[in-house]
Amino acid sequence: MRNFTYFNPVKIVFGKGSIASLSRLLPGNTKLMIIYGGGSIKKNGVYDQVTQALSGREWVEFSGIESNPEYETCKKALEMVKSENVDFLLAIGGGSVIDATKFIAAASMAGDEDTWKIMTGEYRIKAALPFGTILTLPGTGSEMNNGSVISRRATKEKLPFMNNRVFPQFSILDPETTYSLPKIQIANGIADAYVHVVEQYLTYPEHAPLQDRQSEGILLTLMEEAKKILKSPRDYDARANIMWCAANALNGLVACGVAQDWTTHMIGHELTAHFGLDHAQSLTIMLPALLRHQKENKEAKLIQYAKRIFRIDGEDKTALTDKAIDDTETFFKSLGLKTRLSECGITLKDTAFIPEKMCRAGFKFGEKGRIGIKELEEILDLAK
Amino acid sequence: MRNFTYFNPVKIVFGKGSIASLSRLLPGNTKLMIIYGGGSIKKNGVYDQVTQALSGREWVEFSGIESNPEYETCKKALEMVKSENVDFLLAIGGGSVIDATKFIAAASMAGDEDTWKIMTGEYRIKAALPFGTILTLPGTGSEMNNGSVISRRATKEKLPFMNNRVFPQFSILDPETTYSLPKIQIANGIADAYVHVVEQYLTYPEHAPLQDRQSEGILLTLMEEAKKILKSPRDYDARANIMWCAANALNGLVACGVAQDWTTHMIGHELTAHFGLDHAQSLTIMLPALLRHQKENKEAKLIQYAKRIFRIDGEDKTALTDKAIDDTETFFKSLGLKTRLSECGITLKDTAFIPEKMCRAGFKFGEKGRIGIKELEEILDLAK
Repeated sequence: MRNFTYFNPVKIVFGKGSIASLSRLLPGNTKLMIIYGGGSIKKNGVYDQVTQALSGREWVEFSGIESNPEYETCKKALEMVKSENVDFLLAIGGGSVIDATKFIAAASMAGDEDTWKIMTGEYRIKAALPFGTILTLPGTGSEMNNGSVISRRATKEKLPFMNNRVFPQFSILDPETTYSLPKIQIANGIADAYVHVVEQYLTYPEHAPLQDRQSEGILLTLMEEAKKILKSPRDYDARANIMWCAANALNGLVACGVAQDWTTHMIGHELTAHFGLDHAQSLTIMLPALLRHQKENKEAKLIQYAKRIFRIDGEDKTALTDKAIDDTETFFKSLGLKTRLSECGITLKDTAFIPEKMCRAGFKFGEKGRIGIKELEEILDLAK
Repeated sequence: MRNFTYFNPVKIVFGKGSIASLSRLLPGNTKLMIIYGGGSIKKNGVYDQVTQALSGREWVEFSGIESNPEYETCKKALEMVKSENVDFLLAIGGGSVIDATKFIAAASMAGDEDTWKIMTGEYRIKAALPFGTILTLPGTGSEMNNGSVISRRATKEKLPFMNNRVFPQFSILDPETTYSLPKIQIANGIADAYVHVVEQYLTYPEHAPLQDRQSEGILLTLMEEAKKILKSPRDYDARANIMWCAANALNGLVACGVAQDWTTHMIGHELTAHFGLDHAQSLTIMLPALLRHQKENKEAKLIQYAKRIFRIDGEDKTALTDKAIDDTETFFKSLGLKTRLSECGITLKDTAFIPEKMCRAGFKFGEKGRIGIKELEEILDLAK
């Protein structure tokens, strides 16, 4: 096992009715700003539950955070934080709203800096406004980690940052808030969480059997519960299990002491930034292609994945790995998601610029740094 | 799934050589007190590594914390905290040293209170000195939770307390510090961690498949790695995996949203307080007896345990549950641990006072509160 540091101070308050605990979770005597997206929380009752819990407090609101949250929108929120002297943020929504809130929290304390430098790493975060979250769309895991991804449409960039100062102080996870989600958003969330785990699991053996089993536990549960939720959308336990799986998929635990390969996410970010693909769909397209390309490098873990996740029997290594990758793609399709670029009208010619852009400054990808321009071209070809 | 709150802010620094990170983990400008046990850390090099990392800092030391740490010893440490104006504690050892340090941390801030009231719950902890830990004996999980168990030999009491103010700020887990442990201490630690998981897992189904798999992952890994460590004591990965399993066994994660049954630990505490049994041995004696007594109440989970942990096939429910319990006892024996009271020279007559003592004030045990005086008598009989 590799050496590692694990730290995750987010307080999770989980279960039906848990938005009512907001009043005791919030510090007293703060000027609060609630941040949300397009207004679905006004239709599904979440907004009413929140404003009721905020009764007697001083608060303002900022709405309009879009999917793949936009830098320019965050800057508008930032102006409101300053003009209203806000000192606590409350994100209400999915990963996009939470990611935006993390950026706003850090940018609020960055003085006169060009805040895009938070994303490029040129500015090192020294402080951030405290904030909490109410999750209404599980998938990204942002409610229980210190990461955020922000897009800048003007320059077609989509960049991540991570910093311990942007862990939420608390996150409220009420599975009942997800009943009103469109089916595609549920499917996207399941796929996103699934791919998060795979990227921390399908590398090479690190003699970390507990972490392997924690990963496999999430993958198996996501697959089982996905079936249930598609059949019975009001199945509370299925909603709850998917919500808890998504948080566990990217809270740092399954990454402890093991290699990771985030190539799928990094290609996916480019596809979203340039072609507007849903984040999850960019992953369900790229993961099978990546695995097919890397099946020799990942063979030992792919065989374990074949046997433990898809219960595939046999001794033929190639048959095992091929079938496991096919089954992964089949699972994504069963969620109603696309798995090929062509299904989105994207051609190889369209994506031709991606490998070089990703490898600027000699950067390489994969758990052993073996994926460069040529390999990215081949992976995109496998996804066509 | 039940509603739950999960919060665990302990920073874990894991791996070989990690004691060197102590200097950056400690806050600057503190008066430190290191707390340890019988002095084994002076023989295995840990004390030297620590004092090297503390170079340039002001610190004092308190040694002599015993197994099942004693209230009177903690009070002596408390006097030193006050006389030396200590403001940060560093526990170096196993669960006993860490538990003692948690008590000392809380008692230091309790003013003129009778500090035993921390244990009885009559005094509510309002603050605690900050502290870190260096774990040298995995098992109790105290390095990654907010619980502590303190004994008072004068009154033959052994009581637990839990409070969020006694989470360690950090815990350093270097598997190499465990190489010098006697075999019995390794075995005890494995058994303790195993029983912790079972007590959060073997109740009744709560539709929490991820938590089940996280539990099963720990149980399977503990069994596999126990075999390796007994055969090859210098197997670093086996040491590391057992150390990480023990932390995960009682850090709150597998308890999320599920029923629990701590009867085994509560009877075990009485056996240790009155007859001086090793904590782990009290558990390996009581768990099989508890499971045999409760096999109808726990049937559904016992069958899952039989199939997933011991790979027992078949449809006969009684055969599955009986075999799973027998296999559990066999596992404990394979570690060289006792599983019957008679092996420790304890008779049923000796333990006759326990059921009534445990059930004072009408308290009942078990995940459904179905275990009272009569049932405890029967369980002790099954353990004879």
